[in-house]
Amino acid sequence: MIIVLKSGIGDPEIDAVCRRITEMGYSPHVIRGEFKTVVAAVGEERGRPDLRLLEAMETVESVMPVQQPFKLASREVRAEPSEVRVSGVVVGGPAVVVMAGPCSVESQPQMLEVADAVKGAGARILRGGAYKPRTSPYAFQGLKEQGLEYLSEARKRTGLPFVTEVLETESVELVAEHADMLQVGARNVQNFTLLRRVGETGKPVLLKRGMATSIQEFLLSAEYILSAGNPHVILCERGIRTFETTTRFTLDLNAVPVLKKLSHLPVVVDPSHGTGHWDLVAPMAKAAVACGADGLIIEVHPRPEQALSDGPQSLKPSKFTQLMRELGPVAEAVGRSL
Amino acid sequence: MIIVLKSGIGDPEIDAVCRRITEMGYSPHVIRGEFKTVVAAVGEERGRPDLRLLEAMETVESVMPVQQPFKLASREVRAEPSEVRVSGVVVGGPAVVVMAGPCSVESQPQMLEVADAVKGAGARILRGGAYKPRTSPYAFQGLKEQGLEYLSEARKRTGLPFVTEVLETESVELVAEHADMLQVGARNVQNFTLLRRVGETGKPVLLKRGMATSIQEFLLSAEYILSAGNPHVILCERGIRTFETTTRFTLDLNAVPVLKKLSHLPVVVDPSHGTGHWDLVAPMAKAAVACGADGLIIEVHPRPEQALSDGPQSLKPSKFTQLMRELGPVAEAVGRSL
Amino acid sequence: MIIVLKSGIGDPEIDAVCRRITEMGYSPHVIRGEFKTVVAAVGEERGRPDLRLLEAMETVESVMPVQQPFKLASREVRAEPSEVRVSGVVVGGPAVVVMAGPCSVESQPQMLEVADAVKGAGARILRGGAYKPRTSPYAFQGLKEQGLEYLSEARKRTGLPFVTEVLETESVELVAEHADMLQVGARNVQNFTLLRRVGETGKPVLLKRGMATSIQEFLLSAEYILSAGNPHVILCERGIRTFETTTRFTLDLNAVPVLKKLSHLPVVVDPSHGTGHWDLVAPMAKAAVACGADGLIIEVHPRPEQALSDGPQSLKPSKFTQLMRELGPVAEAVGRSL
Amino acid sequence: MIIVLKSGIGDPEIDAVCRRITEMGYSPHVIRGEFKTVVAAVGEERGRPDLRLLEAMETVESVMPVQQPFKLASREVRAEPSEVRVSGVVVGGPAVVVMAGPCSVESQPQMLEVADAVKGAGARILRGGAYKPRTSPYAFQGLKEQGLEYLSEARKRTGLPFVTEVLETESVELVAEHADMLQVGARNVQNFTLLRRVGETGKPVLLKRGMATSIQEFLLSAEYILSAGNPHVILCERGIRTFETTTRFTLDLNAVPVLKKLSHLPVVVDPSHGTGHWDLVAPMAKAAVACGADGLIIEVHPRPEQALSDGPQSLKPSKFTQLMRELGPVAEAVGRSL
Repeated sequence: MIIVLKSGIGDPEIDAVCRRITEMGYSPHVIRGEFKTVVAAVGEERGRPDLRLLEAMETVESVMPVQQPFKLASREVRAEPSEVRVSGVVVGGPAVVVMAGPCSVESQPQMLEVADAVKGAGARILRGGAYKPRTSPYAFQGLKEQGLEYLSEARKRTGLPFVTEVLETESVELVAEHADMLQVGARNVQNFTLLRRVGETGKPVLLKRGMATSIQEFLLSAEYILSAGNPHVILCERGIRTFETTTRFTLDLNAVPVLKKLSHLPVVVDPSHGTGHWDLVAPMAKAAVACGADGLIIEVHPRPEQALSDGPQSLKPSKFTQLMRELGPVAEAVGRSL
Repeated sequence: MIIVLKSGIGDPEIDAVCRRITEMGYSPHVIRGEFKTVVAAVGEERGRPDLRLLEAMETVESVMPVQQPFKLASREVRAEPSEVRVSGVVVGGPAVVVMAGPCSVESQPQMLEVADAVKGAGARILRGGAYKPRTSPYAFQGLKEQGLEYLSEARKRTGLPFVTEVLETESVELVAEHADMLQVGARNVQNFTLLRRVGETGKPVLLKRGMATSIQEFLLSAEYILSAGNPHVILCERGIRTFETTTRFTLDLNAVPVLKKLSHLPVVVDPSHGTGHWDLVAPMAKAAVACGADGLIIEVHPRPEQALSDGPQSLKPSKFTQLMRELGPVAEAVGRSL
Repeated sequence: MIIVLKSGIGDPEIDAVCRRITEMGYSPHVIRGEFKTVVAAVGEERGRPDLRLLEAMETVESVMPVQQPFKLASREVRAEPSEVRVSGVVVGGPAVVVMAGPCSVESQPQMLEVADAVKGAGARILRGGAYKPRTSPYAFQGLKEQGLEYLSEARKRTGLPFVTEVLETESVELVAEHADMLQVGARNVQNFTLLRRVGETGKPVLLKRGMATSIQEFLLSAEYILSAGNPHVILCERGIRTFETTTRFTLDLNAVPVLKKLSHLPVVVDPSHGTGHWDLVAPMAKAAVACGADGLIIEVHPRPEQALSDGPQSLKPSKFTQLMRELGPVAEAVGRSL
Repeated sequence: MIIVLKSGIGDPEIDAVCRRITEMGYSPHVIRGEFKTVVAAVGEERGRPDLRLLEAMETVESVMPVQQPFKLASREVRAEPSEVRVSGVVVGGPAVVVMAGPCSVESQPQMLEVADAVKGAGARILRGGAYKPRTSPYAFQGLKEQGLEYLSEARKRTGLPFVTEVLETESVELVAEHADMLQVGARNVQNFTLLRRVGETGKPVLLKRGMATSIQEFLLSAEYILSAGNPHVILCERGIRTFETTTRFTLDLNAVPVLKKLSHLPVVVDPSHGTGHWDLVAPMAKAAVACGADGLIIEVHPRPEQALSDGPQSLKPSKFTQLMRELGPVAEAVGRSL
């Protein structure tokens, strides 16, 4: 950490800051500039008090971190990319993995119809929401356990593993019994109890970035799962909140190469939630693959205008099939396969 | 809802949209402009399918809501302001209520020392975190049940009720046994399971706005608690995430009059988290009172540079006492008392 | 426009709103819902008073526009995509056009060295700043007219046309004499006098989106140029300001398909300013092409660590050459060429 | 500046960085941590190359500034607050100065009517737009020179000085001949040519923060004016762009105490543009005064629903009079007068 002192601070105050740094377990190094004095505090930070506390001292102007606060998620601990296996499907390897299915599981026929369609088009993992986080208490909240059963049926029929969201700690066990991968949704990215709990299951976890989560916070959320002993974490960019309103969120594809630079974890992209409009899904899906995403998660519904949630951003099976056809060449153009 | 059709849409497609509106239980009214045709769909929306689904139709350009989606939280259902009683202290009445205490409960002596100090300065409710949501898994996570006991001791000694955060559904019952008011933190503002659970306790709830929560979403989160049968909800503005980095968050005081206009619920402001810097707390606390806040929640610590969390934004007891002295005249200037 | 009235508004007030709408030159249509009454105001809006004024009436809750406010820039006026010719190079046609060069023109040898390099790698248009908008008054402000001359020399030598920024109305004429295309920078996107002036030159204009410019405002800025009689406008996405700080800006690739949907104008992307880091330029350039961009504008410098501006985001010629090699297959994957 | 090196960088690379720092005119100080090596570069930065360039080196992870980049605007150069005199009215002294008038000057009678009204209510400076920056080319663009004459008449009649916006360098001279203070609008905050030109006039300048301008950039824009030899700069917060849409912008009152901490310049607040809704103006005006603003600029129009611009955010004279009455006690509560 670099501790920047206020202008005009004299030696006794500099000594006081150094003393406090030493008490906290670090070695202080004073550097005097023409206008500003800074103190570098050297030492392992994890397990010691947080030096940012020094901002509470009236002589300190600011404290600037030098190290990233995450460890297990970082490239510095593991240089080569990680692969996560979801019941046999490898995410983070040479192939770009497409996960697809309805936003909500609505009925057995709906789930099976979509599952057949997305399998036929080349999807490798099914998705479908049984427990739904809804902004309004008056909206459809999901079929819950029944939904898990329809997903299991769809898996049996198609041979594809499935990912589904787990909303709360109480249902982690139940969902983990059924699902091949647990999804932690954007609204739960800093639900630290839930992160620890899904970490303890040892199951693959698809961790979605929150709508106001910085990259650093996102990797710290992954760190919660990793530090619970579960290395099977896949990061998912799904749109952040900005001033722009023509899209539901602003899908931040920059996050893909940034996450790849800072972390060894696989990164997938959700262009359906990220844009909120079905006609933007295809171009943004291609862009995601072009900038290095390891996978995509896409909403598909046979009759979007009757969907119980997120119809406006769902692709019809025919459009999804066309997208899969178009994605192949893009994947190849960047040295991957679909 | 107003359904805007794409340009150049003919009568058969307009009829198809109207048919779908009728099937969904609403009455369609077609208005033909020079360039655009719009269809107004009339009817009670709660309990019926969401018309925004129509955006999934290829002939529809956009769907614009006319009604606010929240009901119990709205001024339309209850015109006069609500008062929430926290063990005898009225929030939302003529007096501006100040809640104060440490970010984290760290020890019995620390908690009692702060409690005495803030009571002496005129605070009416104690605050202190026993369960702490921390961005990093390596940071101090709170004293948990032990912390609740220290808070109870501080209440007994000072006679002030206390508010403390509840982090997860599992501990709702335990926290509700001790606390006078449950706080739902910014990161849990869309943890819908938790909202419903604190709603079921019937205890007063201090609901914090999330860092990317729109006013409309915030009131829908309140609606979860209200619709679980608990009318004792206090809204708390605590800073939103913007591009500006000189403050930790951007405390959005505009939210105070906006919430007052849309809702009857009391509104309090947290200038400590909202700004992240102790020297900005006093001016923003005064501004909050001036624009109509019903209360403030402020972090106070005897030795901020040794705090286990959020030291940089904590006031020393002497500064807090001075602030309370300065707040009185501001409250009076807007027709209230402290 | 749809005028939403406040709840509980009676017939005399509804009549008053309708009267005002009629006075403003529109026809009012009243639709009474169960909770809300709305009035649709029908009629051509351009050239008539702005109905949003009605928000000033105490009986009006909000006014919602139905039509897009831009006209010449819109797909509704011109359905097929426009092509813009920059001294023989077509932007908006089947080929993806890459523009490249240094952020600032620094010297004759630097400009010629970069020009040779980017031409060799396949760029079709040169870029280089002679007039530089700099956040600090103490930073290098550009070689001005001298810079234009070096750019002209580079054009002569390579045969490539060039684009350069015009900062102020006074230099429009001079820059237009030299340059093949005028760039209006992000900070001038709402400098309406400048927009009108570059419109009057009839020269191709590369219009950059501002860091807080909504898509709608961006197209209205284009409308200023178009309505001055100049149809040769190319839109450029270059990053918006969000809360995320790992990138200098958040390159908003969603803008590419959104602009293509709303407008017929060509769209190019600037991944150098958009990300601010040279190692993010290549992945985001590929993503831009994959989602439909008609071109790219990329900063190249032979010795980025000595550049007079924006070194950290500049590619060395060798990296640029490699990127051009990798871009070809991506362009082909989406049915285009380089 | 602190230069953070990538992990695993060896001595030869560290030496190369130090050599480059020395070449740029600074002294390097190497500090070796357990995981990271950082180099502090000491020396006056103004007038020397920008060390952030080092981010272009492959061995450098990031460069962190220690000093603020502005100088003349900073408290470090001038500790006591500046006062700016606008034809006899002191802004930045003990009195809170209210500036008021219509968004646009529309006619002689309108301007005089408003001038009389705001003077009667206690405003000290008139405002009114003669040159209007409008998002749409089809909107009313101001009465231009005619507007300046009506403003001059209003000044003569009321004895109040006036501020008006200058949109472009060409009209600086003309506007400066008439006006007592020049306003640089939000969209021109980084129009550096205009900043320099208004600096050269020596007239008081009201500089508005842009909708995406950071505090640091805002003070650098002020620095352009100050470094042109004009010390008479007043800063104006007028709302930033965020995700929230219930207000037109998010008025960032935190900027008031932050600007006061970093700079000696007076700070005023524009609650009309900042919120966009007349019914939010009064509460936010009071909050601005409570948190330390030196003044307010408020839009007043006799018939807002017929205004040629910004009607929805304009106060009627009666509401403005009431606000002025309510503001007095708030000013006194924080030790000032109106």
